[in-house]
Amino acid sequence: MRWVRYETNGKAHYGMVEGDQVIEVDGLPWGEHTRTGNQVTVADLRILPPVIPPTFYAAGLNYMTHRKKMAARTGETVVLPKQSDIGYRANNALIGPGEAIVIPRDSAGKLQYEGELVVIIGKKAKHLSEKDALSCVFGYSIGNDVSERIWQRGDRTFWRGKNADTFKPMGPWIDTDVNLDALETTVRLNGKEVSRFKTNDMIFGVEVTISTLTRYNTLYPGDMIWMGTDEPTLDMVAGDVVEVDITGLGTLKNPVIAE
Amino acid sequence: MRWVRYETNGKAHYGMVEGDQVIEVDGLPWGEHTRTGNQVTVADLRILPPVIPPTFYAAGLNYMTHRKKMAARTGETVVLPKQSDIGYRANNALIGPGEAIVIPRDSAGKLQYEGELVVIIGKKAKHLSEKDALSCVFGYSIGNDVSERIWQRGDRTFWRGKNADTFKPMGPWIDTDVNLDALETTVRLNGKEVSRFKTNDMIFGVEVTISTLTRYNTLYPGDMIWMGTDEPTLDMVAGDVVEVDITGLGTLKNPVIAE
Repeated sequence: MRWVRYETNGKAHYGMVEGDQVIEVDGLPWGEHTRTGNQVTVADLRILPPVIPPTFYAAGLNYMTHRKKMAARTGETVVLPKQSDIGYRANNALIGPGEAIVIPRDSAGKLQYEGELVVIIGKKAKHLSEKDALSCVFGYSIGNDVSERIWQRGDRTFWRGKNADTFKPMGPWIDTDVNLDALETTVRLNGKEVSRFKTNDMIFGVEVTISTLTRYNTLYPGDMIWMGTDEPTLDMVAGDVVEVDITGLGTLKNPVIAE
Repeated sequence: MRWVRYETNGKAHYGMVEGDQVIEVDGLPWGEHTRTGNQVTVADLRILPPVIPPTFYAAGLNYMTHRKKMAARTGETVVLPKQSDIGYRANNALIGPGEAIVIPRDSAGKLQYEGELVVIIGKKAKHLSEKDALSCVFGYSIGNDVSERIWQRGDRTFWRGKNADTFKPMGPWIDTDVNLDALETTVRLNGKEVSRFKTNDMIFGVEVTISTLTRYNTLYPGDMIWMGTDEPTLDMVAGDVVEVDITGLGTLKNPVIAE
């Protein structure tokens, strides 16, 4: 099943994608819902980020290549993280597919993409074992963890470096039937492929991350976890167009503009 | 005006406090709302955290004394932050007054309190000057930024050190008529005063913080900003009771228990 969140007449709706049509529903995909009589064509939709989560989790440094390249750049030896220390991102930064990533006025003008798998939670969960971890997952989507590297490195927190408005493109939809091992993530900048990696080749996979998280934090329906990215991450400037594609999950495409 | 959020029959409501009575409303305090015919006595309420925000901001290291003592402990010279780098906390951790702060099973067993002023946003805001910053504020409440210092220092992020379930007590309500300069924050541990400071004696005050934040991030109605704390912050163990009191805003009291 494929779920899309979209806007009509200033209101957000969820709908089920069936071919090139979207069947509007009342309610939430992971809760009670009923089909309304309304139906729209996918191509006509203004698609919104598929979720505005109660809590927005993000795993950092979660791929080997990414980690090794970061270490090489700073002259460090590669020390892989011992445990999955999950961070947070902020809802103010979420935008849907097609919306512009805006470079803030006082940025030096370069942002970097990070193409990521997004896990969307469908059931309240605490103390899940790795074996049972996927039982709370509703589905998967695509995120672009846009980062202003100067702020990311210089500020004490990631507040603007990773969470300025428009820095979290997400979508286009949520797929519920996904084989993680079959996925491949591709990033294109202005149509040219700049990154390709096996999506599930993580240091801490989805099961481990959920099991670790739920030792301390209750996951709620609608929460989401962004799973990190692999290298390379290149600079984007105003006028660029960035696409993140994950096999079978669609393509998240956003232009970059200056404020 | 004083607003409280509470639970009756498994549903969350907002109400206006008038004396020892609460007038239930439909809608949100910062949006359209109407009085319902229902009325309850404050003493009978199960009070909830006053807000589950779209985005949960938190200013760290925002008082002089706190900063100086932390530096002394680590042998550093005091370097005050040059700018207000705001962090994030997570909604899963929010609890109301009276609810137990739970020490997770595999914690060494000591948590610390941080008594904080909470600013609640009532209007969408971007690019506010310091002069206009307070125009987006709906009201104020009290938060206790409970921290597990071993995890806070050892993990790469604050995910469990500051955001494990129950680590963010908040309440008891929201006050809209507040003179910031008249406020004093007091923390009591098992009835004994352990901390007292001028609430508005911040390095980066509410106006500066909002003005800085809104250069990059849009604030939305219901967002909140926790403003940091001053020293000392002592250990709490299972069996303790912690109270944070801010002049005129009430008292936030929570017991500490082991998981």
